[in-house]
Amino acid sequence: MSKIKVIVPVVTAEWNDETKKMIEGYKEPDTELDVVSIEKGTGSLECTYDEIYAELATVQTAEAAERDGFDGVIIYCFCDPGLWAAKEKLSIPITGIGEASMHFASALGNKFTIISAGPASHFPNQVRRAYDKLKLYGFQHKCVSVRSLKIPVIDLEGDKKTEERRLMEEARQAVEEDGADVIVLGCGWMMGVEERISKELGVPAIIPGVAALKMCESLIRMGLAQSKRCFAFPPEKERIV
Amino acid sequence: MSKIKVIVPVVTAEWNDETKKMIEGYKEPDTELDVVSIEKGTGSLECTYDEIYAELATVQTAEAAERDGFDGVIIYCFCDPGLWAAKEKLSIPITGIGEASMHFASALGNKFTIISAGPASHFPNQVRRAYDKLKLYGFQHKCVSVRSLKIPVIDLEGDKKTEERRLMEEARQAVEEDGADVIVLGCGWMMGVEERISKELGVPAIIPGVAALKMCESLIRMGLAQSKRCFAFPPEKERIV
Amino acid sequence: MSKIKVIVPVVTAEWNDETKKMIEGYKEPDTELDVVSIEKGTGSLECTYDEIYAELATVQTAEAAERDGFDGVIIYCFCDPGLWAAKEKLSIPITGIGEASMHFASALGNKFTIISAGPASHFPNQVRRAYDKLKLYGFQHKCVSVRSLKIPVIDLEGDKKTEERRLMEEARQAVEEDGADVIVLGCGWMMGVEERISKELGVPAIIPGVAALKMCESLIRMGLAQSKRCFAFPPEKERIV
Amino acid sequence: MSKIKVIVPVVTAEWNDETKKMIEGYKEPDTELDVVSIEKGTGSLECTYDEIYAELATVQTAEAAERDGFDGVIIYCFCDPGLWAAKEKLSIPITGIGEASMHFASALGNKFTIISAGPASHFPNQVRRAYDKLKLYGFQHKCVSVRSLKIPVIDLEGDKKTEERRLMEEARQAVEEDGADVIVLGCGWMMGVEERISKELGVPAIIPGVAALKMCESLIRMGLAQSKRCFAFPPEKERIV
Amino acid sequence: MSKIKVIVPVVTAEWNDETKKMIEGYKEPDTELDVVSIEKGTGSLECTYDEIYAELATVQTAEAAERDGFDGVIIYCFCDPGLWAAKEKLSIPITGIGEASMHFASALGNKFTIISAGPASHFPNQVRRAYDKLKLYGFQHKCVSVRSLKIPVIDLEGDKKTEERRLMEEARQAVEEDGADVIVLGCGWMMGVEERISKELGVPAIIPGVAALKMCESLIRMGLAQSKRCFAFPPEKERIV
Amino acid sequence: MSKIKVIVPVVTAEWNDETKKMIEGYKEPDTELDVVSIEKGTGSLECTYDEIYAELATVQTAEAAERDGFDGVIIYCFCDPGLWAAKEKLSIPITGIGEASMHFASALGNKFTIISAGPASHFPNQVRRAYDKLKLYGFQHKCVSVRSLKIPVIDLEGDKKTEERRLMEEARQAVEEDGADVIVLGCGWMMGVEERISKELGVPAIIPGVAALKMCESLIRMGLAQSKRCFAFPPEKERIV
Repeated sequence: MSKIKVIVPVVTAEWNDETKKMIEGYKEPDTELDVVSIEKGTGSLECTYDEIYAELATVQTAEAAERDGFDGVIIYCFCDPGLWAAKEKLSIPITGIGEASMHFASALGNKFTIISAGPASHFPNQVRRAYDKLKLYGFQHKCVSVRSLKIPVIDLEGDKKTEERRLMEEARQAVEEDGADVIVLGCGWMMGVEERISKELGVPAIIPGVAALKMCESLIRMGLAQSKRCFAFPPEKERIV
Repeated sequence: MSKIKVIVPVVTAEWNDETKKMIEGYKEPDTELDVVSIEKGTGSLECTYDEIYAELATVQTAEAAERDGFDGVIIYCFCDPGLWAAKEKLSIPITGIGEASMHFASALGNKFTIISAGPASHFPNQVRRAYDKLKLYGFQHKCVSVRSLKIPVIDLEGDKKTEERRLMEEARQAVEEDGADVIVLGCGWMMGVEERISKELGVPAIIPGVAALKMCESLIRMGLAQSKRCFAFPPEKERIV
Repeated sequence: MSKIKVIVPVVTAEWNDETKKMIEGYKEPDTELDVVSIEKGTGSLECTYDEIYAELATVQTAEAAERDGFDGVIIYCFCDPGLWAAKEKLSIPITGIGEASMHFASALGNKFTIISAGPASHFPNQVRRAYDKLKLYGFQHKCVSVRSLKIPVIDLEGDKKTEERRLMEEARQAVEEDGADVIVLGCGWMMGVEERISKELGVPAIIPGVAALKMCESLIRMGLAQSKRCFAFPPEKERIV
Repeated sequence: MSKIKVIVPVVTAEWNDETKKMIEGYKEPDTELDVVSIEKGTGSLECTYDEIYAELATVQTAEAAERDGFDGVIIYCFCDPGLWAAKEKLSIPITGIGEASMHFASALGNKFTIISAGPASHFPNQVRRAYDKLKLYGFQHKCVSVRSLKIPVIDLEGDKKTEERRLMEEARQAVEEDGADVIVLGCGWMMGVEERISKELGVPAIIPGVAALKMCESLIRMGLAQSKRCFAFPPEKERIV
Repeated sequence: MSKIKVIVPVVTAEWNDETKKMIEGYKEPDTELDVVSIEKGTGSLECTYDEIYAELATVQTAEAAERDGFDGVIIYCFCDPGLWAAKEKLSIPITGIGEASMHFASALGNKFTIISAGPASHFPNQVRRAYDKLKLYGFQHKCVSVRSLKIPVIDLEGDKKTEERRLMEEARQAVEEDGADVIVLGCGWMMGVEERISKELGVPAIIPGVAALKMCESLIRMGLAQSKRCFAFPPEKERIV
Repeated sequence: MSKIKVIVPVVTAEWNDETKKMIEGYKEPDTELDVVSIEKGTGSLECTYDEIYAELATVQTAEAAERDGFDGVIIYCFCDPGLWAAKEKLSIPITGIGEASMHFASALGNKFTIISAGPASHFPNQVRRAYDKLKLYGFQHKCVSVRSLKIPVIDLEGDKKTEERRLMEEARQAVEEDGADVIVLGCGWMMGVEERISKELGVPAIIPGVAALKMCESLIRMGLAQSKRCFAFPPEKERIV
């Protein structure tokens, strides 16, 4: 039995059930998932500035999961807030959905595109934050573009059609103009769109949360976790919050 | 139920049972493994010249697996013979143990070392062949060294002690001199040595066959396979064997 | 006197005379060329899957050439099938037309484009196979694009005009849109088009077969061949065909 | 008159005076420096885990500096905690001492070495954290090594001799073994050692705090700050601390 | 008091006053600038061929500046003629305006565009010469495009409006099409246009001469100069001019 | 008949005959060589500072060669002085011995070492100048080390034994410690040592002058020269010498 804690690093519990529903269909029979949100931080992570509000609570939630006997942890936001710090602090495997999706994208083709949601004003930060991670994880040479739906989230409420149409447009341009052979859906998505991408465009589409689930389960089963020669344990000391 | 065909791309069946035993302990409950060797090729793959004898039979065995209803295929040699051709020909996911182990090594640290077996005379080809794959898969920047036991296989018959001692020596040098934070065991290894590496050196050790098993199971569960915009189906034509 | 064996790695002899005619005008006075095709493989090499059918016969033909006293070998297909294996097995210099043309392109400018023939359906594999070689030979940073005529070969029978027009279109776009300063004609081409490219677009155009001829003649005259610290001789062993 | 806020991102004010004294000798006549520490965080930043305790207070202190009319901000720790987030939030130029020192090192030679303090147990995290920044700032190809004194800070109390001797040893090895042509002193150092490095080893030594001072003054004088197409302003929203 | 010699490496003194005026507003209070042109060379540096006419006089002028007690030298042309040679010969810091502007561009964003002046026929050499420097200084990965106004200089005499309009067009395309987040004005420009770029496009624009001034002043204040392990002094010998 | 001008870019004619003798044995039957030195410059090129004295005369000699009906030009010094400028100015192919030797080294293996002559004091400049060229030509990733004999030239007069012994030592270390599979002899060498390297160390050794001869002959025969989209002709203008 593998017990995995899934941390949605925002201060609202409203996505927890949907998150669980989205990934549960992909878990192995003897995996058990517990999805939680955090107490301090923001309602959404739209810039690095938001991340520093969320990182401490995220890492502390991960620490608690290890103490509570969980076998692995998933940080469920594409920007992987607090991932490096948690890798230092924890002995059990911990993976971010951004990190995991880049690894699976790399295994399926040579050139992937990341497609994000959010309004046009967020785009510069989305591109930079995606490349920050691509550089840290070493996949910069495999990412041919970062694209965005560039429509305010508010406009999408109850309007899944528009979102899906825009997503298909960007995915098609990624394939035809940028030469992408894999699509990474860089945010939470409705079920089923990855099949449409695969069918209509002939390229696999990665759902980051599912990628992280498979990466985490795999590491648990292999008995492996982040290297302590790369992510050494933090020394004991007073830390003032 | 996921049915996975494991192809040991050599012309002897003598390693099949040991291979199955080695990886079976890591499979998910509803995975079923079938391990086979090939009819034409060589007894071991020690150079690219050997690979071209083995590739066609390997790919044809993979094709047969797909026709027979298998859900995924693993090519069980670190040099991944025929992997690109099989990715073109097959619709189901296929992974090589070299490819899979580099992906998991990448997920656990920043700098891995590949340790191979075989005599010193094989070393130049081992290094080049490892880098050929590192370049193709895009992990050259994460590999800090390729090392070898540099003892003839024949001397190791019934002498597991010497092999293990030499392996620990090379792994220690990889960590201390090359700065490796993950070890990839670039060949078939006895069980248990990866635990000794982990305990004594503080770095995770990847068993390639296990890495491939988890990668293949993950892809099957995710409903994903190699991108057909990267590995398009071969056209119909006459091919003379 | 330098005797060079040119291997056209397809199972038809129909291109041998044309191949000889195309490159003979560029040979040095005391070079002697022998152009042959192979017995087993395919009629054309359109994917990696085709290559694994052709590699063994190609390498064995190269081995025979060395035994027969040839001084050098050329593998006459842009994908260089079996080149690495042959470099291991042979002592005499052996070069592929893809490999040689990238080296000469590198010497004439900073950014080259490879233009291939074949229908649009082949394009994904053409791009990937070109990049596979660019990575292995270390010229990825110098290639700004891989382009294709994207017309079925069948439509070109007796229609050299269309082919030439399409080629000029792609070459022009390579220069004007991609910034290419050298064009590599990534397949067998009619004589003369390279002059038109040079005159109309102001960039040199490399004919791969000619590049390989000059590379092979040069190595023979220099008394050099592939490094045996990179391509060591294969060990003696039984190999089952 | 340029007013620069220097933030020492630790929860003790004991280094503030020494910091001011160290860099003040390098300021331009009409620069005014204000050195402060932070309220929440840790006493020293020895791992990424420590950084997430310090980032929020650091960025909030930077925000206050902009509100208070400062013209520029320096984050005075080699790991540049909160730098990206602060670059988003602020309009005035803000620089980290790690970031600035890499830029000046790049301008003076081709290959620099970073030398850190701290015990051997910190070394894996020091190396990784240095490379995290090198990747983010784009200087990975110019850093030939990260070295450490590998002596506990406690042993250095009142023992500047040992520290200086060890530093000179590491600097010498950096030059002679790693080929470094510039030394970056990756932590707070006593005055004068950079002159000894320059005189005895013939390479410039960068004091990060001084580098940041000159970078910050330069940007203020040029009327420039971080690009808002790279570091866009965070959207307004509730953030729970 | 810092005395800086600014060498405009052309054989006309007509730009000296304008150059001084352009950068003087950015100098520190106790900096003193002396702007000179050279005796032998060309009236403008439009290709590498022009550079070899100008390099010797440029370096000799720099040598004279050191003998005359100057504290630093700036070579005031974006192609930095003679910079490497002068770095070898001099002990005092010397910087080129191309080199300095790339370093500041790197500090303000992730992706810069260089915009040059001159007619379309110069464009191939401008691109290549910019990349030559980007490679030598190690900023190739941060430059997303080199653009040119592509209008003959002669047409711009007394027509600053056209030049500014074309510049704004290219800057806008750099940002919107190439994703640039910083603009480097790769030639001498009228005052004020950098503010328009900043205001209308939201990206900082670097004036190379100003960047070099701040880099040079900073190095002088830090007591640093080019590494002599990278740029060793030339040996004494006869040199025939 | 191919007429090639070989320019030895030093102000002494004493090496001309030896140079001709060294490479003549490698020329094709209908190649004619003319070896000349230059009128202005230095007696040897030991730093970039020396190069700027030699470049103009070198390029002007190349221009004269084209006017005199030569078919190709070789610049016979490993630092390739004036090569870029000459590529702009000339229509006929021109190659430097450094450039050509890197291309042939690339064709024979994956990792080459450059071995230079000269005293230890020259070493920093030798390394930097070699890397300057490696970056410009795009072979930085294939060069594993630059080594030097580190003995004053004066000590070698009449002492070929010592030079050869030191060269073999460095070549052996290049292979065994740096993993080199090809040796580039980065300066003028006595005949025969390349055979000893090949025989004793099993790696090919490139003689740069011979490499340039074969590259130049090849380009002439192919009817190709440097791309004018990369090296455009300099505009007409007054140039003051």
